[in-house]
Amino acid sequence: MHNLVERILKGDIRAVARAISYVEDNHPEKTEILQELYPHTGKAYLVGITGAPGAGKSSLVNKLIGYIRKLGLSVGIVAVDPTSPFTGGAILGDRIRMQDHFLDPDVFIRSMGTRGSLGGLSRNTKEAVRILDAFGKDVIIIETVGVGQSELDIMNIADSTAVVLNPGGGDTIQAFKAGIMEIADLFVVNKADLAGTDKLVREVEQMLDLVKHDAPWRPPLVKTITFKNEGLDELWQAFLDHKEFSLDAGDYEKRRSSHLKEEVVEIVNYQVHQIILQQLKDEQYQQLMEQVSNRSVDPYVVAGKLIEQLTGK
Amino acid sequence: MHNLVERILKGDIRAVARAISYVEDNHPEKTEILQELYPHTGKAYLVGITGAPGAGKSSLVNKLIGYIRKLGLSVGIVAVDPTSPFTGGAILGDRIRMQDHFLDPDVFIRSMGTRGSLGGLSRNTKEAVRILDAFGKDVIIIETVGVGQSELDIMNIADSTAVVLNPGGGDTIQAFKAGIMEIADLFVVNKADLAGTDKLVREVEQMLDLVKHDAPWRPPLVKTITFKNEGLDELWQAFLDHKEFSLDAGDYEKRRSSHLKEEVVEIVNYQVHQIILQQLKDEQYQQLMEQVSNRSVDPYVVAGKLIEQLTGK
Repeated sequence: MHNLVERILKGDIRAVARAISYVEDNHPEKTEILQELYPHTGKAYLVGITGAPGAGKSSLVNKLIGYIRKLGLSVGIVAVDPTSPFTGGAILGDRIRMQDHFLDPDVFIRSMGTRGSLGGLSRNTKEAVRILDAFGKDVIIIETVGVGQSELDIMNIADSTAVVLNPGGGDTIQAFKAGIMEIADLFVVNKADLAGTDKLVREVEQMLDLVKHDAPWRPPLVKTITFKNEGLDELWQAFLDHKEFSLDAGDYEKRRSSHLKEEVVEIVNYQVHQIILQQLKDEQYQQLMEQVSNRSVDPYVVAGKLIEQLTGK
Repeated sequence: MHNLVERILKGDIRAVARAISYVEDNHPEKTEILQELYPHTGKAYLVGITGAPGAGKSSLVNKLIGYIRKLGLSVGIVAVDPTSPFTGGAILGDRIRMQDHFLDPDVFIRSMGTRGSLGGLSRNTKEAVRILDAFGKDVIIIETVGVGQSELDIMNIADSTAVVLNPGGGDTIQAFKAGIMEIADLFVVNKADLAGTDKLVREVEQMLDLVKHDAPWRPPLVKTITFKNEGLDELWQAFLDHKEFSLDAGDYEKRRSSHLKEEVVEIVNYQVHQIILQQLKDEQYQQLMEQVSNRSVDPYVVAGKLIEQLTGK
């Protein structure tokens, strides 16, 4: 057994941090570690929290951590922050988040940056979640700034997903447009002390009437006011209600099973991509790429050659 | 030569629409068509317009089309709208957009939906742009709802990219955080009649002072008020300034060349993904996937088998 795996299973938090760094850095021993941890995964309840930038997700998650800890459950947080290299937001984010919980050994917080591109972030995030799962965290919160497809891809690891909205943003329809609503198992109207809360609640309910009128699970809507600690009971209850519903309906296992299958495909895509990048370092491709640039060879020809080399056909 | 290619090169607009549908549907003749069109591409000026949901991009693009048409240039628009299947927004979007321009044969507007997943949308969008390029459009506008990685991926086909912001959203810092600012060649403060415009302008300029103080190109900031037709001159001029700058600096060709190389990798990833999905239909993988679900086999083992089969190693 890999030394890090042994330490993770014994509860060594530094080993967890190290393993996640291995994942982000695509360390050669990464796959070995993840494989050995895999049989120990599947126990944590995976909670997704997403919403537009500025919706107040980080503060909400911060409060939710405190709430869950009071229930005696341990918590892991993987925050996905596709941050500009300029702002260094991922690190800053960790520090701000940690303030409230850094003395608590049963809270583990990790921000994932954009070190891996092209599906790498989604892959790395899921792997970090698996590590925390094997580590024995009861609840793992996956927080993403969500509008794009890659955020949706990340969220498909969660057992239950909350979409966080704000009053007054006038963005309800936009949020529905952005395709994020299909992944919502529940809605949070955060900053519910602001004007426009009732209007937003009405709009979401109307949307749900349209879209979910014959669905077996209608996503509930929870109002929260983070700085007043209001709505955390209701929020956590809504998560548990969804979990219970999906366990009863058999959706819980079905969803997990389909997520795992998607992960297999992701792993393949990622590993093949690495092979291709390696192939591209050959002299012949350097020349071919030049010819693509001056449009004397088309990209499909080069792609074809790369695939031929890959498959040996 | 493929019949559709012949018709596209002769200026048949219905052939263009058909070819883009082939692209979206992953039609077996798609690659043939794109290969034959490729030598005819590279002439259009590719303009990217992105920004958060609700920033008023569609209205702005609509006005910009009218402006560019008055200059005697033909325009193609590829609008990327990762729309919910519920709202059918892509189709609705087309209809709303078309209102102003549907009698003009020199305007071609196409919304791309989410038919292709996992990089498919980015791939399809670029292919649609290539088709419009070969068709002979002078300017092609690529419009995306941009926050996530996939939108950034889509934008890396553009020669010049504008990021659209709004006053009063308080989202400047958030937008910088979301990593979208690195792709901005210029900024548009849209809805510049609203309160908070000056504050936003100041914030962006401060950010630029920090981030671009020694960059050879400092993204200019243009204020627009769409419903008053204000700022369109300045906006178009800013695009042309950037184009001229990057032509002079050699960045124009360098950027195009690196985009084409990325496209090669995208094509490979996409085609390999198709092969993998085919492999997964085999009985043995159905069984293996069941075992992954019940955690008796880990995903890495199955991924390994798929890669072995793919590469014959």
